[in-house]
Amino acid sequence: MEPARKTQRMINGVNTDQLFSTIDLIKENPDIAKFKFRATNKWIAGTHCRGRVKDFYGALEEDNSRPPVDYDMDEPPILLGNNEGRNPVEYLLVALSGCLTTSLVAHASAKGIEIRGVESRYEGDIDLRGFLGLSEKVPVGYQEIRVHFKIDAEVSDEKKEELIRMAQKYSPVYNTITKSAPVSVRLEK
Amino acid sequence: MEPARKTQRMINGVNTDQLFSTIDLIKENPDIAKFKFRATNKWIAGTHCRGRVKDFYGALEEDNSRPPVDYDMDEPPILLGNNEGRNPVEYLLVALSGCLTTSLVAHASAKGIEIRGVESRYEGDIDLRGFLGLSEKVPVGYQEIRVHFKIDAEVSDEKKEELIRMAQKYSPVYNTITKSAPVSVRLEK
Repeated sequence: MEPARKTQRMINGVNTDQLFSTIDLIKENPDIAKFKFRATNKWIAGTHCRGRVKDFYGALEEDNSRPPVDYDMDEPPILLGNNEGRNPVEYLLVALSGCLTTSLVAHASAKGIEIRGVESRYEGDIDLRGFLGLSEKVPVGYQEIRVHFKIDAEVSDEKKEELIRMAQKYSPVYNTITKSAPVSVRLEK
Repeated sequence: MEPARKTQRMINGVNTDQLFSTIDLIKENPDIAKFKFRATNKWIAGTHCRGRVKDFYGALEEDNSRPPVDYDMDEPPILLGNNEGRNPVEYLLVALSGCLTTSLVAHASAKGIEIRGVESRYEGDIDLRGFLGLSEKVPVGYQEIRVHFKIDAEVSDEKKEELIRMAQKYSPVYNTITKSAPVSVRLEK
């Protein structure tokens, strides 16, 4: 007879017992799954500004427990800045990298697949004629983003490919970028 | 007779002389406008990973002059993490905030409009049933993002609204999110 389990099951550092009990709670009350994430921004000077992340809403309540974290953004001199931070389109790649990685590991963990390491690299093309208003034909945003993953795990390449497909299917940032999302922008008077 | 201008014209901390000479160079050779931005990512454990930004390509050459900057990403405990960093969907809002702000200030500067201050706030809705694969009907990415701007400048509200429309028209991150971009993801064997 097994003793009552006292510790939570961890796979790849992900508490899969908590994951599955969260899924059960959401099935009972879908409102638990509704999250609101937030940021604020303050312009400093020129191309330098500062983003801040603090509170969010989720699992039916406000979370104000985290201290604020600031993110400086600026352009390199060739783009009129002073390198006081990395630029916003680079932050977009960072966001994509974190989301694909976390989605891959979370879904691997849910399937019981042990991972030793995950590394990835990102490159995206932007033609500044869009930003500068020099051509209506050139997209203003990224024209294409290419991602390459290295996965260290005792599974076949086919299984690794499947993990990558799951990361793409379930990553919120990947899906926001590839499927688009509406953004409303208003002036506060 | 005016003396030869020795200093560059700065509006809102943006060197508009450099901006207009860059535009002239790009009109002569559009390849100068082609940029490639990059990031890498390394998984740490659980929902914790680390993005890194260093080099980029632009204005016909590689730029390796900047030191690497790391960005820790993690989830809060309610999302199975340990708050070792803010999460990827929050980084996406930070990216959007920096890009709209920089675009607004750059285009105001090009028009000679002096700005004293710009602040903005961002909120986006995510229903985790998408990420968790609990419903095919729920979008995996952001369902909607709402942005509010406060602009401190000696111009009318109509002019401020116009600045916001220009920020939306010319921001690469805003356009990537609202119009989508293709992302290819490959396994490196």
